[in-house]
Amino acid sequence: MVEALARIRCVLVGTTHPGNIGASARAMKAMGLRQLALVSPLHFPAAEATARAAGADDLLAEAVVVESLDDVLRDCVWVLGTTARRRGHSVPVLTPEVAVRQLIAHASVSPVAILFGRESSGLTNTELDCCNALVQIPTAPDFRSLNLGAAVQLLTYLCRREAFAEESADPVPDGGPDRPASQAELSALFEHYERALIAIEFLDPDEPRQLMRRLRHLYLRSGLTVSEVQILRGILTHTERGGARGRADT
Amino acid sequence: MVEALARIRCVLVGTTHPGNIGASARAMKAMGLRQLALVSPLHFPAAEATARAAGADDLLAEAVVVESLDDVLRDCVWVLGTTARRRGHSVPVLTPEVAVRQLIAHASVSPVAILFGRESSGLTNTELDCCNALVQIPTAPDFRSLNLGAAVQLLTYLCRREAFAEESADPVPDGGPDRPASQAELSALFEHYERALIAIEFLDPDEPRQLMRRLRHLYLRSGLTVSEVQILRGILTHTERGGARGRADT
Repeated sequence: MVEALARIRCVLVGTTHPGNIGASARAMKAMGLRQLALVSPLHFPAAEATARAAGADDLLAEAVVVESLDDVLRDCVWVLGTTARRRGHSVPVLTPEVAVRQLIAHASVSPVAILFGRESSGLTNTELDCCNALVQIPTAPDFRSLNLGAAVQLLTYLCRREAFAEESADPVPDGGPDRPASQAELSALFEHYERALIAIEFLDPDEPRQLMRRLRHLYLRSGLTVSEVQILRGILTHTERGGARGRADT
Repeated sequence: MVEALARIRCVLVGTTHPGNIGASARAMKAMGLRQLALVSPLHFPAAEATARAAGADDLLAEAVVVESLDDVLRDCVWVLGTTARRRGHSVPVLTPEVAVRQLIAHASVSPVAILFGRESSGLTNTELDCCNALVQIPTAPDFRSLNLGAAVQLLTYLCRREAFAEESADPVPDGGPDRPASQAELSALFEHYERALIAIEFLDPDEPRQLMRRLRHLYLRSGLTVSEVQILRGILTHTERGGARGRADT
């Protein structure tokens, strides 16, 4: 199951301290992961990153550096977000063991990602909204502060252990014969959804409130397959048509 | 079992980089451990240690600094040594999970210790000879280099998880503030769905095929809440209206 580890992308978002990038690369390489992606790092490349990588500088050299999170999630079928707080999330907040079990099950077939947020403030709500599930590393209640590199070490260790577990993983949550939809396919679905809801006057574009976010969460939890996305988009196309004819009628 | 965590002493032997001492203190505090012992550190106290401790400087202030390992092991009933290599050890070399299980079992009654060796060369044979068991953290075969602070993070995390294992199993995934929809509420949703799909002529009641079953599966996997069911039914009501107007139009 080394292939599963190779399909896991660690995405560091808005990292402030380059030393943490180096430490993350080292942690990843020791656990057999290779795909590092950096979204808008404050300083990179940086001598401090190379120093802390301590021999994992090949991962730094291969790291993908982008400005937008979307650019590194397109091909991912399952995205796990790290969070320090239990906020009012409507995707599940899992323990590290449960989260990693699900991650590896997906990674045994398709690309997946783990998102690590900024040292000071973590991931934004918009970034969390890309996630199929969240993971919270349990800590002492009076000191929740985990170093970024340490969090990467912990989760990548659990990934390696799970990937090599003799029970060889729960099968991918059975969504039928079909492969899971990618982030790009889901984005297209949600855009279509929004247009259709506007067409039937359920969604007021001037006052959208939380509607699209809530629908996102609901469908991300489900882990849609490609053919399910097609069904939903088929329904939306008919819905729009009904809405358009409805409006023409008035 | 917080008491068990308080009985675990992390002993860093001959640490070269003070940053690693700070990172270890931070990792320990986040996992609820407090007893840090330093055997002949190269630099301590040090600004770099305090910086990397990031709020765990109380552990640094309380740290016991000694010249001889014996001085910090006297009261320990069980000592676990970390090792990167499988040498000809005469004590067992355990996986992290097994090692930590034994450690916590002892710590539930008496003081125990985990020894972490030098960054470059680990523990000497004499130091390994103080250990009741050894633990080797599995790594990729071609890159065995783990950062000291990362190793402390990993083992102390497993200690915390093991110490709390008996008290609480994995918490139930948090599905949001809302209660899950009942079977009756879901049945009403699916009936409503079917009517709406017929209204927009997406579903042919004479040849329904597997459509409704597939939608059922998709939503059942998601684990809908009551308020999500309400949103979906709101959309369906608007969809039907568009469809009805559409039909009137033809």
